[in-house]
Amino acid sequence: MSKKTIGIIGGMGPAATVDLFKKIVENTDAANDAGHVRVYMDCYPTIPDRTKAILGEGESPVPYLAESAEKLAAIGADFLIMPCNTSHYFYKELSEKSPIPVMNMIQETAKELHSRGVQKVGVLATDGTVKTGIYQKELAVFGIEAVCPSVKGQQEVMRLIYDGVKADAKQFPAEAMRGVVSELFAQGAEVLVLGCSELPLGFERYGIPLENTVDAVEILARAAIAAAGYPTKNEG
Amino acid sequence: MSKKTIGIIGGMGPAATVDLFKKIVENTDAANDAGHVRVYMDCYPTIPDRTKAILGEGESPVPYLAESAEKLAAIGADFLIMPCNTSHYFYKELSEKSPIPVMNMIQETAKELHSRGVQKVGVLATDGTVKTGIYQKELAVFGIEAVCPSVKGQQEVMRLIYDGVKADAKQFPAEAMRGVVSELFAQGAEVLVLGCSELPLGFERYGIPLENTVDAVEILARAAIAAAGYPTKNEG
Repeated sequence: MSKKTIGIIGGMGPAATVDLFKKIVENTDAANDAGHVRVYMDCYPTIPDRTKAILGEGESPVPYLAESAEKLAAIGADFLIMPCNTSHYFYKELSEKSPIPVMNMIQETAKELHSRGVQKVGVLATDGTVKTGIYQKELAVFGIEAVCPSVKGQQEVMRLIYDGVKADAKQFPAEAMRGVVSELFAQGAEVLVLGCSELPLGFERYGIPLENTVDAVEILARAAIAAAGYPTKNEG
Repeated sequence: MSKKTIGIIGGMGPAATVDLFKKIVENTDAANDAGHVRVYMDCYPTIPDRTKAILGEGESPVPYLAESAEKLAAIGADFLIMPCNTSHYFYKELSEKSPIPVMNMIQETAKELHSRGVQKVGVLATDGTVKTGIYQKELAVFGIEAVCPSVKGQQEVMRLIYDGVKADAKQFPAEAMRGVVSELFAQGAEVLVLGCSELPLGFERYGIPLENTVDAVEILARAAIAAAGYPTKNEG
């Protein structure tokens, strides 16, 4: 298989972009520098907020995503990935404008859960991601049922993402969020998708258990390494 | 001050590139995504080994560095940084070929040590960096004396970098390296410069004490944030 290069449209958010790039390097099975994928990145933190745009409260990110796609393609990226789940609401529009293919993190995650035989999944994501049903739709393609937090639970998820990780808060009261997690498992979810790239960071930083969760960013990183023609490390 | 964007010539090595990018994001004093610097990165892992080139055992990295500089400038980078200390041996050559300025990590580190009033420094770096004296020369500009490990000690430093961090070894026997550190302090070094970007990673991963060390990558990250016109967080 011929080798390909990866382009990262980043900045959504910057910490999640570090996380995606780190997971690409860490999940590549390389004995030395030269065994790693070439990765181009545009960490573009002023791309308009995706959730606000979806809710009709802000500018569309699409022209910015397309600008970034053009730039990364111009210097040699073969395909693109984005660490931001919510941005995938604009996936089709971006794909049409992008000169190179865009890998879909939500589809890759649904595929991975299907291959693990999961049938009911709890989705933790931003208001934008949840309301637009992008996870629910992709999971349904594989016959996987999705459950989401209550209205109050969803507010906790947003607080963790915005007031915790994005604000780089050293401490964050996480009891309420632990309750949201328990609620989803009580509703029969076998696995929780951390479907916002800030969530794996927030769970780790504020001590929320990661048991039976999957990290969409890690799934994307591994899928991208494989698509670039490089070996991935064994999991775990 | 008008805002600038940063370009990272990366891949030397990939883990060090993650580390530099992470330190840029973590050291920026931002309340939300939009408060972060725009960063373009080319993680180019097949840039020829710098130490080998310096020792006359391999191809020059300069054409590759220049290619990367051209690409990053073409998509909008205002100035460049490189996480690899050893690559700074080629700094002048690259600067002449680069369409945009290149910030010098070694100079920034010497400046920082001078501002802290340090007079004698231990240099831990690759054979290439040590033999070419790039740290010694920049430190001498500020009247700072440099001490380096013995021949045997230097072999330990190289083992830690290549057989430890670059090979992504989970475990590494670090007793010998702890001895190298003690030796330098015994010779009167007030501070040790971790002058290879793999060293802060190796010290942390294999449990070598970081007291009285400075991380050239972190100094570079903070200097780059400031040069881009963004506020840095207070240290520590």
